[in-house]
Amino acid sequence: MFGTVVDWRGSIIRQGGAFGRERGLHVVDWGALADAWRAGYQPAMARVRSGELPWTKIDALHRMILDSLLPRFGLSDLGEADRDHLNKAWHRLDPWPDSVEGLTRLKRRYVIATLSNGNVSLLTAMAKRAGLPWDCIFSAETFHHYKPDPETYLGVAGLLDLGPSQVMMVASHKDDLRAASSAGLRTAFVRRPLEFGPGGNPDLAPEEGLDVIAQDFLDLARQLGA
Amino acid sequence: MFGTVVDWRGSIIRQGGAFGRERGLHVVDWGALADAWRAGYQPAMARVRSGELPWTKIDALHRMILDSLLPRFGLSDLGEADRDHLNKAWHRLDPWPDSVEGLTRLKRRYVIATLSNGNVSLLTAMAKRAGLPWDCIFSAETFHHYKPDPETYLGVAGLLDLGPSQVMMVASHKDDLRAASSAGLRTAFVRRPLEFGPGGNPDLAPEEGLDVIAQDFLDLARQLGA
Repeated sequence: MFGTVVDWRGSIIRQGGAFGRERGLHVVDWGALADAWRAGYQPAMARVRSGELPWTKIDALHRMILDSLLPRFGLSDLGEADRDHLNKAWHRLDPWPDSVEGLTRLKRRYVIATLSNGNVSLLTAMAKRAGLPWDCIFSAETFHHYKPDPETYLGVAGLLDLGPSQVMMVASHKDDLRAASSAGLRTAFVRRPLEFGPGGNPDLAPEEGLDVIAQDFLDLARQLGA
Repeated sequence: MFGTVVDWRGSIIRQGGAFGRERGLHVVDWGALADAWRAGYQPAMARVRSGELPWTKIDALHRMILDSLLPRFGLSDLGEADRDHLNKAWHRLDPWPDSVEGLTRLKRRYVIATLSNGNVSLLTAMAKRAGLPWDCIFSAETFHHYKPDPETYLGVAGLLDLGPSQVMMVASHKDDLRAASSAGLRTAFVRRPLEFGPGGNPDLAPEEGLDVIAQDFLDLARQLGA
């Protein structure tokens, strides 16, 4: 979802800017804040995966990270309502231009579902706002395991009564795909050159073991005959 | 779902009849078979709820019941593929005529989700075939508890980050609604006079404690301003 289907960085920058103008805040580098926020994501999940934290939803992890970042961006004075509003920006991310049409085409031929570390309410709100036409919403929260734990990939196959090789994980992140492949799933890599912004330099290289490499969801639909 | 959104009895009769004609079976009373099959549903779930059986999906419970019924209907000779096909009839139930339009209207204003004892793959296949426009598919399987266990109703509220009173359970069965109400949810009773067939005589009476009583999903949408 984050990066593959929706443009988290551009969306946080747009929403942060609008929020700052509404609230008359001083100029904030929302790109830097988005990057720092996202950089806290894997370490926060690692604390849950290791057992240091009990099961904790992404909304709560996002909020912990945000609270820790606000002083650095001169936003320590933000009250509870504003912090909550800002945190829920992750519920309101905009899809990449090809996502809705590509998913709609894929849905005609396949069951399409999320498997995101985002919590169910986040994924539901995002899908409803953006018009993402999921058949099912699966989340790390469904399994109380964060990706790349195999319980997530195998959990989806189990809920759908499919063998792992009948399920394809689609992502713009190779670590996610490697873990899915290790669990026996098929994999599709969707290139998102702008996920980390104009200077982001993501790894877009072809790689052994990827079943499909696609430029976007329209290309993926085409390659999968949908 | 079963009875509220889809017409399980009519669908089983239609599919059974078509299956029998295809296979050249002797005449089977598919209405009686559907009724007996459905009558085995609550007792089978009770065995899971009591701990006598470990967690078992409805597909497997349906199959246990079907296998036990086949001799009574002269169908002992059915092979594995036919038994599986017949069992999956529960994945292919037809909606009542108002369901898709009513749900589509409700979806514009509300998050709409299943909370059924049917397993996830069953609910997904049914939604896809029938065009049921769920935002989310929740199942007893999501929580490893069958309704009317409170873990199911409260589990949905928790996944959606809502208080119980912000969630409305919609059903044609009062026992489901009573349990939802006890867990703090709001309730809407949808009358389905033909759920159990022309001679079914279901309890359609108004009752204290139901928040909404609707004739069908179009009436429900109207009453809820959608």
